[in-house]
Parts: sequence; C-alpha cells; structure tokens
Amino acid sequence: MSTLVIQVERPFVVFLGDVTDDTYAKTGLGLVQWRREDCLGQVRLPGATVDAGVPNLTIASAKAAGARSLVFGVAAVGGGLPEHWLPTLRDAAAAGIDIVAGMHLRLATLPGLAQAAERGGARLVDVRVPPPGLPVGTGRKRSGLRLLTVGTDCACGKKYTALAVDAELRRRGLKSDFRATGQTGIMIAGEGLPIDAVVSDFVTGAAEVLSPDNDADHWDVVEGQGAIFHPGYLQVTVGLLVGSQPDAFVVCHDPTRTHIAGWPHVPLRSIAEVVERTIAVGSLTNPSIRCVGVALNTSKVPAAERAALIDRFHRETGLPCVDPIANGVGPIVDRLLEEFRS
Amino acid sequence: MSTLVIQVERPFVVFLGDVTDDTYAKTGLGLVQWRREDCLGQVRLPGATVDAGVPNLTIASAKAAGARSLVFGVAAVGGGLPEHWLPTLRDAAAAGIDIVAGMHLRLATLPGLAQAAERGGARLVDVRVPPPGLPVGTGRKRSGLRLLTVGTDCACGKKYTALAVDAELRRRGLKSDFRATGQTGIMIAGEGLPIDAVVSDFVTGAAEVLSPDNDADHWDVVEGQGAIFHPGYLQVTVGLLVGSQPDAFVVCHDPTRTHIAGWPHVPLRSIAEVVERTIAVGSLTNPSIRCVGVALNTSKVPAAERAALIDRFHRETGLPCVDPIANGVGPIVDRLLEEFRS
Repeated sequence: MSTLVIQVERPFVVFLGDVTDDTYAKTGLGLVQWRREDCLGQVRLPGATVDAGVPNLTIASAKAAGARSLVFGVAAVGGGLPEHWLPTLRDAAAAGIDIVAGMHLRLATLPGLAQAAERGGARLVDVRVPPPGLPVGTGRKRSGLRLLTVGTDCACGKKYTALAVDAELRRRGLKSDFRATGQTGIMIAGEGLPIDAVVSDFVTGAAEVLSPDNDADHWDVVEGQGAIFHPGYLQVTVGLLVGSQPDAFVVCHDPTRTHIAGWPHVPLRSIAEVVERTIAVGSLTNPSIRCVGVALNTSKVPAAERAALIDRFHRETGLPCVDPIANGVGPIVDRLLEEFRS
Repeated sequence: MSTLVIQVERPFVVFLGDVTDDTYAKTGLGLVQWRREDCLGQVRLPGATVDAGVPNLTIASAKAAGARSLVFGVAAVGGGLPEHWLPTLRDAAAAGIDIVAGMHLRLATLPGLAQAAERGGARLVDVRVPPPGLPVGTGRKRSGLRLLTVGTDCACGKKYTALAVDAELRRRGLKSDFRATGQTGIMIAGEGLPIDAVVSDFVTGAAEVLSPDNDADHWDVVEGQGAIFHPGYLQVTVGLLVGSQPDAFVVCHDPTRTHIAGWPHVPLRSIAEVVERTIAVGSLTNPSIRCVGVALNTSKVPAAERAALIDRFHRETGLPCVDPIANGVGPIVDRLLEEFRS
C-alpha cells in the first residue's frame, strides 16, 4: 500500500509493561485476538499480571525470533509513560525493532529513545500521527467493493464489527482487507490512517488513499469513526463516508443508550435515521450505497433479554441483526453476498 | 475574543512587495476595501505598480504612525518568497511590528526573521496555522444570532457575501461581527480561524470558539467554506455548519458553472438541493435554521442578461436574490431582519 499510509512491520511482539488491570491492556489483548498469526509473543516487565496468552519474550529473544516491531498493547495509567518502561523500549530500538505506539506524547520525545532508534536503525511509529502529503479527495469511482461500519454513536462496536466482517469474509475464502482508521485498528491491521487526526481539508482524500483501487471482487472493510448525528465528530464521519464511497454499510448500535455518550443534551437518533442520512450523504460518491445489517452491542443488556431484543431490531429494520461478539456476523455477511452476488 | 483565535493587531500596513499584477494583490486590495479605517498605508518595494490607493509608507514611517502589524497583501508568483522582500520584513519585525502572512511556508523559517522578531518583540503570525488547544464541539446552544454563507461550490462568493452582509447590518446600526474562517478573511477581520487547516476532530469545536455566546440581538456573520456536495471538502462545510449553529444562511452561486470547479466529473447541485441539505444537517444544532437569500456571482454573465437571470433565480427559489458586488445585499438583509424581527 501507499507510503501515505502508516505501516507496522510484521511479525511483532506486544508490549504490556507491568500492567495489572486488563482494562489498560485492551489494545494488546485485541492485537493477539485478531492477529495471533503475526504475534511472536509478549514482553512484560516484573510485576505484570496481565497475560495475553502468548509466549513471554525478552527483547533479546524477540530479536532472535525475528521481531520487526514492538507494539504498545497498553495505555499507561494517567496517560504518561512510566519511566521504568523506558530502558526496555530503548533496548528494543537499539536492537533494530521498531517501536509502535498510539500515545498522546510523541515517541521521539522520550529520553534517549530517538538516539537508540537511530543506532539500531529502528523506526519510531506514532500511530496517532498521519503521514505528510495526504491529497484532497477526488470523488472518482474506484474499482473493488467497500463496506463501512457506521454507528448511532461513538464507541458502540464499529472497529469490532469491521474486524469481524473482514474475518468472516476471509473464512469464506473471499478477498477482504480490514482498513483501519483509528490507532488500535492500525496496530491490529499493521497499517492504516488515524482519520480523526487528519487536517480537515484532507479527510476525504485520506479515506481514498486508505481503500485504493482493487480487484472487482475484493472487499475493503473500513472501520468507521464518530457518528453522522454527532455534534462534535460528524465531520469526521462524513468525510470518511464520502471518501470511502462504500457499496454497503453496517450500523452499529448500543441499545442501552438514550443519548450521545458524553453529550447528555443530545438524544440518540434511531437506526432508521442513521441509515437514511448515511445513504443521503454517501450517495454523493456511490449512488448505490445500501445498508446490509445492524450490529448490536448487547453487553449491557441482561442475558435473558438479548435474543428478543435482537429479534425486535431485526423486525423493525428488516435487516440482518446480530451481536457480533455473542453470535458473530454470519447473517450480515450472508446478506452482503446476496446483495453483491455478481 | 478567546486566545484560541488568531489575532492580528491593529492598525496595520499592507505589504505589496514589488508586485505588478493586481491578481497577486487581491488580498491587499480586499484589506483596504473592507478595513480602510484600520489601514495606515501600503509598503511597496521599488518596481511595484500595484497601488491600493492608500499612503505609501516605509517601515520607519509606518512605525512612527503607530503600525502594529505588517500584513501580507500579496501572493508571491510561484508560491515562494522572493529573497529581496526579506530585508523589509526583517526591518519591520526588528521595529516591533508583527508580520502577518498566509503563505504555505512558515514565517519562522525565513532566514533571520525569527531573530529579528525576537529582537523587536514582534510576533510572526501565520494565518494558515490554527492555534493549539482547540476543543471538541459540544453542540450546546449559544446566545446571540448567527448567519453562515454557504455555496454550491468553492470560490463563488462566500467571503465577499459575508463581509457585505456584516457591513450592511452595521450600516443599519445593528450589532454584527464578520467571523473569518479562511486566511484572507482573517487578515481582513483581524481575527479568526483557518477552519480547513484544523485537525478534523476539532472542526465543530473551532466553529464554536469562533462565534461564542453574545448579546441576544447580535449577529455573527460567518464566512463559509467548501460546499455541502463537494466530494473533496464537504467535511469542512459540514463541521463548520454544525459548529456555527446558524439561525440563517445565504447560498452563494456562480450561475455559469455546470460542475464543481476542478472536479469536471461532479455536476453542480441545484440551489434547492443545497438549501435542503444545509437545513437537514444544520438542524442538528439549530432546528430553526432557514435560508434568507441567494447571492449570485454574475461577473461572467453578459451584462445585458444579469437582471433577467437574477429575477429568474428569485422566482425559482422564492428568496431574495442579489449580486452582492453589483447591487449589494440590501434585499437579503431586509429578509433577515423580517424573519428575526424580535
């Protein structure tokens, strides 16, 4: 893929620091869940209790095993970087292993890390920082097929659903790539663009770069961002939608929410409204855009009520409706392939 | 206004270099046209033939007259900065006069300029660079009234129309501020935010910062950007719209265009479509948003056909329709005040 896209070299080891709470290691656990085949093991410091269930490695053994990248699988409590993590990062960089992180602070500002990387010939990859030189969107139709996950809100399953659809397409022997638009997705996919960090003029162009021309029967499954009725982030959603020019989209929804999370004065719009607006805006670059399913996050719904709830949404929307974590995305992919049979 | 907004100190002198073609001095001529009261004069180098019709000043006489800023009124042919312009800029900075420019290259990278500015206590103000720390949009309703100019395309009169509406409101003794969202607008207004250079996550927030709470009878007249059906830039337009939460908007249109300028494969949408979509999207943060007029750029229409054309658009849209340059925006402001009489 283009040099305009962030690249993470494989295979990788996942860095878990000395974290003792799974909440802070979600990225690392996701990396292992979705890309076990590219993961040589985990690097943990004394005191760590989080375990991603892969071999424990030192920097030396990681290097010997052929590790190309050390990927941050942890968020530091409080957001800064604990000083006692630094020697391990410097050792890795000095050994020529790229350091990949998605922190607010830039890797190059950590004491001694840039020098170690230069010595070892390693790259410091901040996945929150878009590469320079992104173009303006052209709106030109590209070859290949695209699916975008959208949502009624932020943080309701867009990344997970896209990863699950991509995995299910591959499982069925079809051509598919997950296209990452956020930091965790980029670490998992090994490439991508942090779309919300792109200068606004270039958001559609970034989305175009992310899902380039491809085989006629190839799916790009694009990780959505924000929400089309979100008063803070809709511009990101809209730019990603128009630049991605998806043929199909899936709406992700948390049925327990009544308002935009963190925006208590903004009521959540219905799935039907999101479908209608997504088609209205998306048809600018793809007039045949259509919705192929609903992905519900039912983790906060009592277990006994989930099946009835999913069935209700299915009847209300007339679309395949699943909880991707509980049941997978099979019915959505069935519908997708039915709609795009040719 | 907030320190999150770029500020240009007044009074200013306009710098015209040694330019001989008005095309390259459009910004300077606009500065003088719209803010004559803040302009002490022009600084020109030997060979210049462009004349903004204000007193000729040297850096020394500008300083003596109280100039706080030297504002670039020219674009250099080719985009770079001619080396022989530099001594004048350094003299101004060393004299404590802020240098204000909207070039692609940063002022601080020009040889010796940062040092001169430090010596003189001057600021180097790149109006293409948004201040750090912009917030995410909240969508919260603000006090005061807002009008946004939108367009069927880029470069069809949104800045001019906003300046004209602001000027007409003031002429009638009403409270109004022009809110600049592009580099030329910022130089004219003396403050503003280059909205298309803002990181996409913060576009709605930037628009909110730009038109803060105000008196109930105060108008912010916000300069629009891009176009809501533009395949490259619509995300800028949408973020600005939702963050500005306008009560009223004016559609700017060049009746000679059939396609998006520079996008020959994208047909221009009708004014009616732009009105409908602007209301649909804008009602997220202002449910009573409405269109109050159409501003036509008829400069490429044969003079004999203009009146009939304007009349046709008036009948088709049912809205006041003017060419702001030829006839002013009186009828649009009439309609605006009728609609918001209270």
